[in-house]
Amino acid sequence: MIRLVDSSLRDGMHSVRHSFSPEQVALVAAGLDRAGVDAIEVSHGDGVGGSSIQYGKAAFSDEALIEAAASVVQRAQIAALLLPGIGTLTRLQAAQRLGASVARVATHCTEADIAEQHIGWAAEHGMRAIGFLMMSHMIEPAELAVQARLMESYGASVVYIVDSAGAMVPRTAAERVRALRDGLDGATEVGFHAHNNLGCGVGNALAAADAGATWLDGSLRGLGAGAGNAQLEVLAAALERSGHATGVELFPLMDVAEDVVASLMERPQIIDRTALSLGYAGVYSSFLLHAERAAAKFGVEPRAVLMELGRRRIVGGQEDMIIDAAAQLAADSHPAPTGSSGSA
Amino acid sequence: MIRLVDSSLRDGMHSVRHSFSPEQVALVAAGLDRAGVDAIEVSHGDGVGGSSIQYGKAAFSDEALIEAAASVVQRAQIAALLLPGIGTLTRLQAAQRLGASVARVATHCTEADIAEQHIGWAAEHGMRAIGFLMMSHMIEPAELAVQARLMESYGASVVYIVDSAGAMVPRTAAERVRALRDGLDGATEVGFHAHNNLGCGVGNALAAADAGATWLDGSLRGLGAGAGNAQLEVLAAALERSGHATGVELFPLMDVAEDVVASLMERPQIIDRTALSLGYAGVYSSFLLHAERAAAKFGVEPRAVLMELGRRRIVGGQEDMIIDAAAQLAADSHPAPTGSSGSA
Repeated sequence: MIRLVDSSLRDGMHSVRHSFSPEQVALVAAGLDRAGVDAIEVSHGDGVGGSSIQYGKAAFSDEALIEAAASVVQRAQIAALLLPGIGTLTRLQAAQRLGASVARVATHCTEADIAEQHIGWAAEHGMRAIGFLMMSHMIEPAELAVQARLMESYGASVVYIVDSAGAMVPRTAAERVRALRDGLDGATEVGFHAHNNLGCGVGNALAAADAGATWLDGSLRGLGAGAGNAQLEVLAAALERSGHATGVELFPLMDVAEDVVASLMERPQIIDRTALSLGYAGVYSSFLLHAERAAAKFGVEPRAVLMELGRRRIVGGQEDMIIDAAAQLAADSHPAPTGSSGSA
Repeated sequence: MIRLVDSSLRDGMHSVRHSFSPEQVALVAAGLDRAGVDAIEVSHGDGVGGSSIQYGKAAFSDEALIEAAASVVQRAQIAALLLPGIGTLTRLQAAQRLGASVARVATHCTEADIAEQHIGWAAEHGMRAIGFLMMSHMIEPAELAVQARLMESYGASVVYIVDSAGAMVPRTAAERVRALRDGLDGATEVGFHAHNNLGCGVGNALAAADAGATWLDGSLRGLGAGAGNAQLEVLAAALERSGHATGVELFPLMDVAEDVVASLMERPQIIDRTALSLGYAGVYSSFLLHAERAAAKFGVEPRAVLMELGRRRIVGGQEDMIIDAAAQLAADSHPAPTGSSGSA
């Protein structure tokens, strides 16, 4: 049995500039609940407390949105995402008071240790604690399993492989799920959160399920950062056709996607050149603007800069290396004449 | 090595009402050729000779479009699709004279025998003859292999599994490729043509490649009937990330998708409720209008009618059974009182 988690009201926030209102959240959440989705994630795109100049100002508080969702659901659990360093524990505590019963605590895939306090608190205070390993394509499956075991040791009952850059294909997704499935306790479940930059949102989620993942994320109409997520109503149908039960009723799920979410979208969730380039390079979407500026300065292709950042495995906080990467590419394509130190 | 075939200028014709002009075809074909795509399929959406009241009038003749494409390519082969019963052999002969060197002859998956004359002619007259088994999800892998062997016996050097309804998932796609791979001569290649109704366009093509398919179709921006095809520029990137070489240069391919094809599209190629319903039911998109009318007449859900058509495995030519399916659904949901023959 696969548990489906909807992220339209959290990851989807990225594609509507964090503008969903409590009324809109209630409409979507009620539809998801009627269809039998297990959990509904609600907050700013970067988790509770994410509203800021740096990450984008939200139109409404996380608390108002979580309360709106919690007030309309009958069966579904409400989930709150927390990125330690962006949000604080007090925001998670507020989320719980307003009706969130699932805590998803997210870190970069090599930094599980910064989630110890937050996962621990959630597990000790009656929330389902879920660990979220972002940019999971960047490290090998065995290393990822080590990080997952850390989260498990803090109290996580589910650990997610998060393909933040949409850089995985079914083979790499399945390898990571198997590594976690082998490395974790039998009672700890494995989840998968896809992005669609390489067109594999649904395909990766199916491969994850085949490999033993039992929690899968998606969003209605694929609403999400970049190329978007696995399209939830499509994933539900594809899982059924692949022999995986979800407990979700497909027609009501299609209806909330088409009758509610489609009209709230600012643009269709397609795979354009930018989204594809980011997924192919396997880098953070927040690097894009930096890469474009550095490329212009040094007269090189923006995509070539993204590829170089992917090769160097640059992560958030290392934005200063983007200039260096562009300068290097320019030097490689226009080498100074051999034996000369003069102008070329 | 995977050979990529672009179908933007044939299957993509469905989503632009068969309106591409020779100038537009030349622009797209030149871009595909620069990127190193192996073959470019050009014609009305239903193949050469498809322009008609029944299948949709094309703005320009197949011959003018094929000639336009052939005049600009340096490396790529030009492919013409022929559906026996819609187009005739004379159209294929004309296509060859104008520069098409690949003949793709398509039949319903149980009717390979009607392709004998056309595949045979193409193979004998210096064209690469490819067999195209449409709606391949409708029969079991072993049965499909029998049909593929027929096409091979007529002279096809490649036989395609065509997921016309977008009803397959990676598992069912791979099963069919393996059945053909096992059933055909080693020298005969297997191809896969995806549709994206279940979000598996790229995922199915990757699964097909892993299972031994060496010819894969796609289209730029996913342009195609219904939910569209595997998005070619995305598929090329995903194949590379999956360890399959294609010989295609990715950046030029992305550029023709974004700089040329995107501006020619009338709507983005998304998976809406209708496309998903058709893929989930596994029925021809041409049944949609009939199903909607029958559903209205009998007061049942159009989607329920589509599902019933899928269960009954109705194929083209059996449209009269759509009314019967809707009537049956209505009777099942409002049964007459037991023991009474009076009005209810």
